[in-house]
Amino acid sequence: MSLQLRSSPPSPFGRKVKIAAILCGVHLDIVWADTTDPQDALRTQNPLGKIPVLLREDGAPIYDSPVILEYLDACAGGGVILPAGGERRIEVLTLQALTDGIMDAALLQVYEARMRPEAERSDRWLDIQAGKVARGLAALEAAPPPHGGVSGAADAGEIGLACALGYLDLRFSGAWRPDHPALVAWLDGFAARVPAFEATRAP
Amino acid sequence: MSLQLRSSPPSPFGRKVKIAAILCGVHLDIVWADTTDPQDALRTQNPLGKIPVLLREDGAPIYDSPVILEYLDACAGGGVILPAGGERRIEVLTLQALTDGIMDAALLQVYEARMRPEAERSDRWLDIQAGKVARGLAALEAAPPPHGGVSGAADAGEIGLACALGYLDLRFSGAWRPDHPALVAWLDGFAARVPAFEATRAP
Repeated sequence: MSLQLRSSPPSPFGRKVKIAAILCGVHLDIVWADTTDPQDALRTQNPLGKIPVLLREDGAPIYDSPVILEYLDACAGGGVILPAGGERRIEVLTLQALTDGIMDAALLQVYEARMRPEAERSDRWLDIQAGKVARGLAALEAAPPPHGGVSGAADAGEIGLACALGYLDLRFSGAWRPDHPALVAWLDGFAARVPAFEATRAP
Repeated sequence: MSLQLRSSPPSPFGRKVKIAAILCGVHLDIVWADTTDPQDALRTQNPLGKIPVLLREDGAPIYDSPVILEYLDACAGGGVILPAGGERRIEVLTLQALTDGIMDAALLQVYEARMRPEAERSDRWLDIQAGKVARGLAALEAAPPPHGGVSGAADAGEIGLACALGYLDLRFSGAWRPDHPALVAWLDGFAARVPAFEATRAP
């Protein structure tokens, strides 16, 4: 099976897929994508022009990251990064949605600076996005998810949390760390248990 | 089983959940949420402050809409709006991700006008979001999804497409219609086959 991943080195959603593929024992050929280039094949692979996209051997695209993670889990026989069913599966998927939402809100803050001249930036919009990140981190600090995932490695929710915190380190200089000691300890534990986390760190 | 849905009348993602619940035969008590009100319990139910959120009897929250649709399908025994597994499940989930992405890009255009004074609005940002909607619609116009879903009713991808088109009707005066005759016919067919679509139209 030959699978191609379209992503970019700093994408936190792409990092989720890379970690998941390692945990599921699935090899991915990575072809970097430029989301700003209209000529990049990305926009025909995913009309939204978003990364990551997984291309199957026949070229059929799979996105977004939760769907790719479900596919990779199925490739590995199931039950590796996602519980097969039941309450626990829904809990893991909801945690993944929370951590994806934290990444989305962080990305919208980055885009505000990257895509707009200074006069078109909005403090109110930045505050709204920062509030989503702050409330998400506060909820997770109060109750970090248990380590160990489905198969003893890590589940999709844990992978999402690690990538969200890694992205805040990358783009916001780790400003979240002083106020969230339980999450700092959680991330240290994750990195120690899942070598794929360091192996996929953006250069 | 008593389930509570937090949503707002025009939310296209909330409409997905309402249609899915009807197709799955699950009753939802709807409690409207105000995403702009910091005092609304929404922000403790979902730290992201986003709708829809489904609350189980014990208060445990489920989000975002793809996770809620999976939960509702499981409540109905599975295989009602989502194939249980295999290639077809991944195709349906990818279609859902595409239609959710169209809604997200449409919402970001609405927010640009709603949340910013005129000087802080960006034509470039609006163009980027409009491009995602246009490319998504073009891809779907070229190959509308087959009707009939998993159980003969409708699957999560079809529900997503109907709600995306319904939202473009609501907020962009149906400007998509003249250039997308195949999707107009598709939506007419969906509405005729799935009465829950009209029953959940925003007032």
